[in-house]
Amino acid sequence: MTLRAVEAVAHATVANLGVGFDILGMALQAPFDVVRAERRPEQGVHIAAITGDDGKLSRDPTCNTAGIAAAHVLRQIGATDGVSLTVHKGLPLASGLGSSAASAVAAAVAVNALFGEPLDRAALLAASLEGEAAVSGRHADNVAPALFGGITLVLGTTAEAIYSLPLPSNLHLALATPAIAVPTAQARAVLPQNVPLKALIHQTAQVALLVHALHTGDLALLGMAMERDSVVEPARAHLVPGLAEVRAAARAQGALGTIISGAGPTLCSICDSAACAERVADAMRAVYAELGLPATVRTTRPASRGATWRAI
Amino acid sequence: MTLRAVEAVAHATVANLGVGFDILGMALQAPFDVVRAERRPEQGVHIAAITGDDGKLSRDPTCNTAGIAAAHVLRQIGATDGVSLTVHKGLPLASGLGSSAASAVAAAVAVNALFGEPLDRAALLAASLEGEAAVSGRHADNVAPALFGGITLVLGTTAEAIYSLPLPSNLHLALATPAIAVPTAQARAVLPQNVPLKALIHQTAQVALLVHALHTGDLALLGMAMERDSVVEPARAHLVPGLAEVRAAARAQGALGTIISGAGPTLCSICDSAACAERVADAMRAVYAELGLPATVRTTRPASRGATWRAI
Repeated sequence: MTLRAVEAVAHATVANLGVGFDILGMALQAPFDVVRAERRPEQGVHIAAITGDDGKLSRDPTCNTAGIAAAHVLRQIGATDGVSLTVHKGLPLASGLGSSAASAVAAAVAVNALFGEPLDRAALLAASLEGEAAVSGRHADNVAPALFGGITLVLGTTAEAIYSLPLPSNLHLALATPAIAVPTAQARAVLPQNVPLKALIHQTAQVALLVHALHTGDLALLGMAMERDSVVEPARAHLVPGLAEVRAAARAQGALGTIISGAGPTLCSICDSAACAERVADAMRAVYAELGLPATVRTTRPASRGATWRAI
Repeated sequence: MTLRAVEAVAHATVANLGVGFDILGMALQAPFDVVRAERRPEQGVHIAAITGDDGKLSRDPTCNTAGIAAAHVLRQIGATDGVSLTVHKGLPLASGLGSSAASAVAAAVAVNALFGEPLDRAALLAASLEGEAAVSGRHADNVAPALFGGITLVLGTTAEAIYSLPLPSNLHLALATPAIAVPTAQARAVLPQNVPLKALIHQTAQVALLVHALHTGDLALLGMAMERDSVVEPARAHLVPGLAEVRAAARAQGALGTIISGAGPTLCSICDSAACAERVADAMRAVYAELGLPATVRTTRPASRGATWRAI
């Protein structure tokens, strides 16, 4: 079965979860990108429009994460005709919420659906990574949760290297995205090349505790373990305005932990109720108002499902 | 209630479980140390006898891990009389099976029991660590599983920093201890002081997978994750004769993973049945026979309970 047009949704993702640098990621219910794919007789990928990006993203499909992922799918399925993409960015760019991953995943899922879903999720992971690699490097810590949903442990770039971890049922989130961009390349450049063996021991211990907390559904333990990153956060903290203030304010409102989402500057607090998340969001707004820094603040929950599509 | 004499048993422990350097430990049903404690009117600790050590351990209670732990318990409870200890070493010394930890734990548990158990397990952990610190450094990765049983995640040296991880029900073990000593100090001296950030990412990922495998009871995954230590095993492999050969031979007999126990030279293979563990043990014997190296080979299972005592 082939379709005329398909719309796919892929969600924001919080990579790292603090201490799990480059290995953990969590899908969020909001925000999300929507990619609409329509068949066109000409081979290859055409980008009809991009909305929500303030004109910042390339409309050249060979330079755009959605375009690259779509082209990879077309090549994999040996399509004789092409697609036209319309990308609706719900995610802010360079904010640490996996914007490039969401667009790549939505495009891959949409194009695959348009042609009757010939590719499995492993192949869609590869296609999405092609798009992600062009913008943020070949890492699956955003792509994997965006595609598969939930919380993923990412040991590599193939589907066999992705493990789904349990999603605690009462996990609620508050997110604040201050209006500054932190390009992933810059956020990577500040990281140490080497770390003391003691830091390795500390970091492995906290990651072990984090996974244990997910399996036992112990959100207090989860929040504690997440925050105990002694390697990446200290190196990046100066790139993320308001980190200390937001963490303290969130904790005062009952947040169990606050971490930098991906490369930042988005901060993510975990809570055990919707009411707590709302209080924490209010506190985050107050912190950034005090700092005189515009910020987008929202509450959301983890998304247990990955990217979805529907025919239109 | 006070008793005339008490006998406590504390078990061998496999620290690290491969990739979990300094943070993981597992108690074994065998071998074990037995410490007998009897009251004596003179204050302090007297060591009446030590068996099974070929005369290698100090009989001076201030230089002996059991004596130091016992003295710490006496001080904590403010005892006005003393104890006489008889230490039966079931564990080989300097073999990577937590010999000093087992004696310290057994002594602490025995002396505490002798005086009616005034101390809780947190205080016994502190006392045991005093003994361990004198011989192997202040690490709880052997002491904690010896005291609490099962598989423990060790984030520090206090009871709140120890977490019990699930013990897969069908976990069977084969162990080979070649007749060479690897002093812990030497095994620590060969470790790198710094590791690349990439190694940190790899190691945290494998530890996360290991904890996930314990929670899901997936022994194949557990064995895979255990073996993927890219930091400590490569630095220590030359201290452990037969590692590569034993690992290959064990795998050929169905072992799911083989790691260095603690600082070595004991090697530990995990299996999913008693029959498999027996086959692996036979293969281990054959390897060391081929290498011309005497070795003690045994099969055992994890011990879900920690140190125990009985009045005698």
